[in-house]
Amino acid sequence: MRRNIILDCDPGIDDAVALAIAAAHREELKLLAITTVAGNQTIDRVTNNALKLVNFLGIKDVPVARGSAAPLIREVIPAEDVRGSTGLGDCLLPETGKAPASEQGVVFLADTILKLPQGETVTLVPTGPLTNIALLLKVFPQVKKRIDLICLMGGAAVGGNVTATGEFNIWQDPEAAQIVFHSGIPIVMCGLDVTNYCGFTETQIREMLENPNPVVHAYGEMTDFYLRSRPYCRGSIAAIHDAVTVTWLMHPEWFRGREMQVEVDCSEGQNRGMTVCDFREWAQPEKRSGVTVLLEADTEKIQKFWLEALYSYQN
Amino acid sequence: MRRNIILDCDPGIDDAVALAIAAAHREELKLLAITTVAGNQTIDRVTNNALKLVNFLGIKDVPVARGSAAPLIREVIPAEDVRGSTGLGDCLLPETGKAPASEQGVVFLADTILKLPQGETVTLVPTGPLTNIALLLKVFPQVKKRIDLICLMGGAAVGGNVTATGEFNIWQDPEAAQIVFHSGIPIVMCGLDVTNYCGFTETQIREMLENPNPVVHAYGEMTDFYLRSRPYCRGSIAAIHDAVTVTWLMHPEWFRGREMQVEVDCSEGQNRGMTVCDFREWAQPEKRSGVTVLLEADTEKIQKFWLEALYSYQN
Amino acid sequence: MRRNIILDCDPGIDDAVALAIAAAHREELKLLAITTVAGNQTIDRVTNNALKLVNFLGIKDVPVARGSAAPLIREVIPAEDVRGSTGLGDCLLPETGKAPASEQGVVFLADTILKLPQGETVTLVPTGPLTNIALLLKVFPQVKKRIDLICLMGGAAVGGNVTATGEFNIWQDPEAAQIVFHSGIPIVMCGLDVTNYCGFTETQIREMLENPNPVVHAYGEMTDFYLRSRPYCRGSIAAIHDAVTVTWLMHPEWFRGREMQVEVDCSEGQNRGMTVCDFREWAQPEKRSGVTVLLEADTEKIQKFWLEALYSYQN
Amino acid sequence: MRRNIILDCDPGIDDAVALAIAAAHREELKLLAITTVAGNQTIDRVTNNALKLVNFLGIKDVPVARGSAAPLIREVIPAEDVRGSTGLGDCLLPETGKAPASEQGVVFLADTILKLPQGETVTLVPTGPLTNIALLLKVFPQVKKRIDLICLMGGAAVGGNVTATGEFNIWQDPEAAQIVFHSGIPIVMCGLDVTNYCGFTETQIREMLENPNPVVHAYGEMTDFYLRSRPYCRGSIAAIHDAVTVTWLMHPEWFRGREMQVEVDCSEGQNRGMTVCDFREWAQPEKRSGVTVLLEADTEKIQKFWLEALYSYQN
Repeated sequence: MRRNIILDCDPGIDDAVALAIAAAHREELKLLAITTVAGNQTIDRVTNNALKLVNFLGIKDVPVARGSAAPLIREVIPAEDVRGSTGLGDCLLPETGKAPASEQGVVFLADTILKLPQGETVTLVPTGPLTNIALLLKVFPQVKKRIDLICLMGGAAVGGNVTATGEFNIWQDPEAAQIVFHSGIPIVMCGLDVTNYCGFTETQIREMLENPNPVVHAYGEMTDFYLRSRPYCRGSIAAIHDAVTVTWLMHPEWFRGREMQVEVDCSEGQNRGMTVCDFREWAQPEKRSGVTVLLEADTEKIQKFWLEALYSYQN
Repeated sequence: MRRNIILDCDPGIDDAVALAIAAAHREELKLLAITTVAGNQTIDRVTNNALKLVNFLGIKDVPVARGSAAPLIREVIPAEDVRGSTGLGDCLLPETGKAPASEQGVVFLADTILKLPQGETVTLVPTGPLTNIALLLKVFPQVKKRIDLICLMGGAAVGGNVTATGEFNIWQDPEAAQIVFHSGIPIVMCGLDVTNYCGFTETQIREMLENPNPVVHAYGEMTDFYLRSRPYCRGSIAAIHDAVTVTWLMHPEWFRGREMQVEVDCSEGQNRGMTVCDFREWAQPEKRSGVTVLLEADTEKIQKFWLEALYSYQN
Repeated sequence: MRRNIILDCDPGIDDAVALAIAAAHREELKLLAITTVAGNQTIDRVTNNALKLVNFLGIKDVPVARGSAAPLIREVIPAEDVRGSTGLGDCLLPETGKAPASEQGVVFLADTILKLPQGETVTLVPTGPLTNIALLLKVFPQVKKRIDLICLMGGAAVGGNVTATGEFNIWQDPEAAQIVFHSGIPIVMCGLDVTNYCGFTETQIREMLENPNPVVHAYGEMTDFYLRSRPYCRGSIAAIHDAVTVTWLMHPEWFRGREMQVEVDCSEGQNRGMTVCDFREWAQPEKRSGVTVLLEADTEKIQKFWLEALYSYQN
Repeated sequence: MRRNIILDCDPGIDDAVALAIAAAHREELKLLAITTVAGNQTIDRVTNNALKLVNFLGIKDVPVARGSAAPLIREVIPAEDVRGSTGLGDCLLPETGKAPASEQGVVFLADTILKLPQGETVTLVPTGPLTNIALLLKVFPQVKKRIDLICLMGGAAVGGNVTATGEFNIWQDPEAAQIVFHSGIPIVMCGLDVTNYCGFTETQIREMLENPNPVVHAYGEMTDFYLRSRPYCRGSIAAIHDAVTVTWLMHPEWFRGREMQVEVDCSEGQNRGMTVCDFREWAQPEKRSGVTVLLEADTEKIQKFWLEALYSYQN
């Protein structure tokens, strides 16, 4: 059975990988739309990247809508240093000259969801700050019953990256994240606890760089940038955080998670942006949070799955 | 020249007075629409109150749209104790059986603004929590250039009501307020610094109660409730906070204000919801905030103006 | 009747004026000791300043003890820019070569208080951050019953100086201030609400500078520095905040204050260090805070009183 | 070589076990003094418990001093529910009628440390809130160079007990903890990451309860209370948090730890009292924190070690 999905993203190298994997599995995942959100880069750049990617990956039928230019409360702080000036590392994809299908990402999300055939639902796959999703749920609450799941990349049960406890996507817009985590919609949280360990090795990236297939080569260029620029690449792994989301959708059996109470720290203090995951199952034994926090992953299977998807592209 | 206005409110007794005064001056104020927001009472009750009020005041042509049911981040905390179970004190206005023009207040706001004749702008007059306005500005940023002013009731330069530093409307949704105060749109903040001192005396309310005019009588019933239930009525004045907004629109010369930097405390601490007004003009001498904080008012003229408006209603 | 006092200070120009005024009134104020605390400057500099001042003012019998080198939690942030590199503006008092009577200010405070003749009490006069006083009350709680009053310079009911809501002394060590305000000891808070308006005019400072009396001249040099360096001198007044404390002790009739609940904002947010004064007397009608916040002062009488004290010094 | 130690505690069942183990190894650990601090129970009760314990364990030569009655800023919140009304569960030790050696624990700590023979240092072993230690370091900074190590029970790198992220001892007085963690003194943090897994099984406790040796029996009664009252006993283990400290002093080889930056969340938000341990070794590669956070322990060896210590008591 085919699952409707919408990617809400800020490409971004790892968003680009997530998109490639989803696009390689269109029989299982029906990609209804892509919406963009400021995060890794400004909204202009991430939107342009999304347009270039659908062109490059041969999925021009998927509409791209420009979403929120800034988090709910604060200014956007692009992660320029770790993701290159376009947001895609050294990879220069061809420009398309195409405009987005809509300049109003949140309205476009609502329209797309509300015009689904009766009885169908959609899975939202956010891989950037949750600004669009939070605004969608607040302005168009009637969409909630048409969303079966939000499978997001963000947060961490233990340890952050941008701060000691804050993961980049959630830290960019903690208030939006708090809205989403409290929405009542079932959530799978693909946080650093698993995404830090899912990635490509230096050898694998080298092989991609040497491959004549333009898609494989381009992704080699992108991920090579990670490896070279990120101080926090664990050993020789270039973690591809965002791609974990679409992987879970197809192979949840490769992951172990746990339903937990999750609150987002929206204070102005050092823990701003932390996803506070309550490990104390004895503390609120009967309360259901609806949030499943992934804690372990079969990283080898995932790596293989990703490589197969990338190498499946033909020219 | 006639000014386009939209009332965004949570009626609420003082919202009801604001509406009556605006409706009594339709030659100067063109009331395009009313949107509702949870605050003084639940969204169902304030929406029903708005519908009853347009009927009762004879302005049935003004559309009412139901807005946000809850603040951005937290739950709504109705001020039931001070405003009666319907939100209008002891006053039982006739039910109308009418449904709102729209169930999507934020979208309705956007549509109303964007379909204004070219060259026209609108003044937003929020007298409740700023949830709708914040969502409007985030989801439909293109409306900004069509909004000439936001003249709001909320906040305080000195001293709150619901907490030591928090005024009810802002405290209900500080994150929304922060979004609005940072929007770049010119703002007139009618806070407790002036609204605490604008109201009706016990004698005036008694006279309204004895008046056969149903409108006057009804407003006597509403405001009498304030006088009896509010511990913080200064002396014998029943402060009518929200009505200060429409008054300023018609008679700015009765007020003295000052442009100040205003930040909203969005922390989880004791000052949550405080409008932090920076009195230190020497601190940021060249920075323009666009926010004019009203600090003094000619309370006698205002009182007289309000009574004239209420007594102008005929049956 | 003579009142025992201990000055706990960080001289600092206005501390120096407070000391001169106290020393000019030794018949009414028995100055038992001076303790120092890091604030306007490092602990070394303020202690050296205190030693030089007792020498210069001819009160060498008053012991000086070195107190806390840093606030409870954070680092000290000297206000170098507004108070000169020694902390006394351009005034170069003669060095004394004398060491402090004690290197342990907090213990010295406790000893001094506990060895008071039976039946006697002492008034603490803090004009810097409240670090020493907080530590004293926590480590030696038995001193509480020997302290009749804490008359402090710090805080503001409305509007700060170092931030929009934070006054320098309290903002330097909010946690210490919270301990003191909650100690149960009667407190008179001389905050910016009065101290901003108590000071010398440019003309008065010029006259001091031209006076041959070395004490008068020296204080002219100090206060002239304020006038030239402080962006926030109201008009042509050089506010002498700390001197208000000793003035209230002798002439409380020149002031109007109000007992209020005072909480210190110890958050990490924008209001850190704010003294949150609750103006809502209806909110906690029966609760006694013990804290009297000064709100108005007869500034002309105070100015005259200060000048008389300074000009009373002979050589 | 014998190590000087001072126990700063709030007995408390697990403090009592820590004391028994230390007292059973007096050849290795020279117990100079015990100071008490409000935490598990009021200062009166924990001080009385300490006096009863030194009597019961036959170490009457060890002086007990009464310390701080409350945290630095907030009120003490006894953990009455989980530790019985005396703080020692159902175990009723004989009263001693003895008064503490000092009513001023912080001064007593300073005196004890400063009168150490030249060249000797001491290890502080705090097993309650860090109030006394923080005050000691602030008021008597000259003790720092005589303290070789602070080996404390408190905090957690991952997951709290009293809140989702807060461990009881640190949460009781986060400001004190922040002072201690920033003191520059080497620290070993025995947090929940190891202490949750060090304890007695139900079978072991049952055996103690059946043992005629009064010391063993008494500790059976105490720890049995844990097992019955604590919702968060992992499986059938009654965790004996505080005893891990003295165990590390004697057998550091049974533990694996890591030097980490540790900050305490002193905000008023949900993470108040969290020990924020920064796992990102790449973030501040050259900064030394001096804080070793224990992350793993050989729990079986520890359990055996504890039982041997308890069973070694003779009558």
